[in-house]
Amino acid sequence: KIKDDKLVAPYIHELQLNLEQIEKGGYDHFMLKEIHEQPAVIKDTYRGRLLAEQGIVKLGGLEDYIEKFINADRIIIVACGTSWHAGLVAEYIFEDLVRIPVEVEYASEFRYRNPVISEKDVVIAISQSGETADTLAAIKLAKSKGAFVYGVCNVVGSTISRETHSGTYTHAGPEIGVASTKAFTTQITVLAMIALRLAKAKGTISHRDFMLYLHELELIPKHVEEALKTEDKIKEIAAVFKDVRNFLYLGRGYNFPVALEGALKLKEISYIHAEGYPAAEMKHGPIALIDEHMPVVVVAIKSDHYDKVVSNIQEIKARKGKIIAVVSKGDTAVRELADYVMEVPHTPEALSPLVTTIPLQLLSYHIAVMLGRNVDQPRNLAKSVTVE
Amino acid sequence: KIKDDKLVAPYIHELQLNLEQIEKGGYDHFMLKEIHEQPAVIKDTYRGRLLAEQGIVKLGGLEDYIEKFINADRIIIVACGTSWHAGLVAEYIFEDLVRIPVEVEYASEFRYRNPVISEKDVVIAISQSGETADTLAAIKLAKSKGAFVYGVCNVVGSTISRETHSGTYTHAGPEIGVASTKAFTTQITVLAMIALRLAKAKGTISHRDFMLYLHELELIPKHVEEALKTEDKIKEIAAVFKDVRNFLYLGRGYNFPVALEGALKLKEISYIHAEGYPAAEMKHGPIALIDEHMPVVVVAIKSDHYDKVVSNIQEIKARKGKIIAVVSKGDTAVRELADYVMEVPHTPEALSPLVTTIPLQLLSYHIAVMLGRNVDQPRNLAKSVTVE
Repeated sequence: KIKDDKLVAPYIHELQLNLEQIEKGGYDHFMLKEIHEQPAVIKDTYRGRLLAEQGIVKLGGLEDYIEKFINADRIIIVACGTSWHAGLVAEYIFEDLVRIPVEVEYASEFRYRNPVISEKDVVIAISQSGETADTLAAIKLAKSKGAFVYGVCNVVGSTISRETHSGTYTHAGPEIGVASTKAFTTQITVLAMIALRLAKAKGTISHRDFMLYLHELELIPKHVEEALKTEDKIKEIAAVFKDVRNFLYLGRGYNFPVALEGALKLKEISYIHAEGYPAAEMKHGPIALIDEHMPVVVVAIKSDHYDKVVSNIQEIKARKGKIIAVVSKGDTAVRELADYVMEVPHTPEALSPLVTTIPLQLLSYHIAVMLGRNVDQPRNLAKSVTVE
Repeated sequence: KIKDDKLVAPYIHELQLNLEQIEKGGYDHFMLKEIHEQPAVIKDTYRGRLLAEQGIVKLGGLEDYIEKFINADRIIIVACGTSWHAGLVAEYIFEDLVRIPVEVEYASEFRYRNPVISEKDVVIAISQSGETADTLAAIKLAKSKGAFVYGVCNVVGSTISRETHSGTYTHAGPEIGVASTKAFTTQITVLAMIALRLAKAKGTISHRDFMLYLHELELIPKHVEEALKTEDKIKEIAAVFKDVRNFLYLGRGYNFPVALEGALKLKEISYIHAEGYPAAEMKHGPIALIDEHMPVVVVAIKSDHYDKVVSNIQEIKARKGKIIAVVSKGDTAVRELADYVMEVPHTPEALSPLVTTIPLQLLSYHIAVMLGRNVDQPRNLAKSVTVE
């Protein structure tokens, strides 16, 4: 209904935003946006595939090949960089739940040696872009030896997704920041779902545990959201340590790969020399580095290794090392020993990398920002390594 | 026959040496002595076991278990620290020559997770002292699962040598320096002999290649001696880089573990933060660290990966990184690109770690000495890690 038909001068309001800013959704950097997207994209990744109430986990690409997987002599995971770390997490999950031996290989090393591989092996190739040259070459080699190759990629229609026999996409959405964050957690989400589906089919998991894991996986977005809320605290820790030139990252079991990934993030965007190690290996060399100038980030959540990690922390403190610990909510023992703690909600150890990795991403991000680094496009690095 | 029977005053000359100095055989440190002993102890390790002319390699502890090895589903190597690096070298040798899948595990990680292991698996445990607590615990776990366990130790009668079903001793003699040197090369010598014996039994090596490797293994002491002669040159390089606080070490294939071991040596005795990486992984993160302050040690000997390594070196140079390269005698391409080179004699790639590791040991040693470190007893470290 027209009230009056006077001519109206159009009002033009020019938005003071460029396209990039709009895409950043109000965040200072794509990386920060992508870190904060994780609760949503993890949910996107399991949505329609995981029905915890009904006890169903179903991946389109997997259903036809379940027999192939559970009868495999070995599962060989090939990947590079952050995807390789997701592969290491998967090694622990698969061996633990599906009881199939898993070998995780750097794609570049796998392809150039003369690997033992046959048609009884299953290869899982992990790549966010689906274009990683070394991973692609490893896939071709594996196929030529008769192995079945399964892909875990983020980019739909990418070369690796086409070259593999089947696969599952992560639904992380476009990842623009060169340092991978949401790709990592969605890769682990997919790999955990594959492991659960196979464990159920193979009968290596009890119904009770199966239901528990499905339920806990569904809770991960909520836990990640909670972990993200500690950002202000993490910013304070970043301010304390930003001028340090060296870091050690330690973890055990499922959280050893998280230590590697945490160190890689810091390397990539802050150019600080950070190195990850399985905590127990520290005594075999790296502990010589420890003094008051060498902070050590330790993943020390409640788990079967908790006491061992606490004793590792005591060793470091005895050498005057500074400890930044990722702890379970409510932890007291590590809190007393550590100089700084970053809290995460409790979840079963097999899923804990999805949560423990969050504070480490934020720590790297805030240190890099404080150092004035180009966080989204760190020097020397390309988003997708399409050269060999 | 007595010439004259006058009483003679006994002449007492007091040696101005303490016991430790005598044991150091004129070297400033045990570590340097042990580095220089390598030609002799590698020979001691294959003496009586390797008869190159007759085409015989025979290890007492192995002969009765050859079938067990060649029928194994997998060989799992468990170790810590430097021994773990020897295990990684062995992975390449075994997969290449014997065509059995090999998995190398940190003993500490293996024992605390729930590893997939059965009576069809063979476990090789490597430990210089034979007392490493985590390795011992891993052995007990493997035995409880029915696996056959083979030991590679240096100390006769040590706990691990008694707890394993069979094994082969390295004949390195007592290693006093906390940073392992001759134990590493003699471990690789033993593991190479095991691989050759098994490859021959399994028929995965041609007679010609078998004879070639035996012959080349016999030549290793001579090659190591030649590599040791470059010590003055290495001292000059050490003087240039001694005040640097961070190093990267890169290698590919057989020399990826050598890069890890080279970095560990520098960490242990100089307290410089050095990290090893497979060269191709550099593009997936660590290359962000590279600038004029970050020297990169690259093992760039003539091999199948030579061109790839040359291109890695070019990438580093483009980012103003300083290159110290281990090259094959007579090399020209890398010499033109690198800032400094350390030459080693040519040997087949599978045996090359025995030679390429020598200049890296010397580089660490001389840097540490120039920094006034306690080389034989670096801070925080114990020779044999008998706690968990």
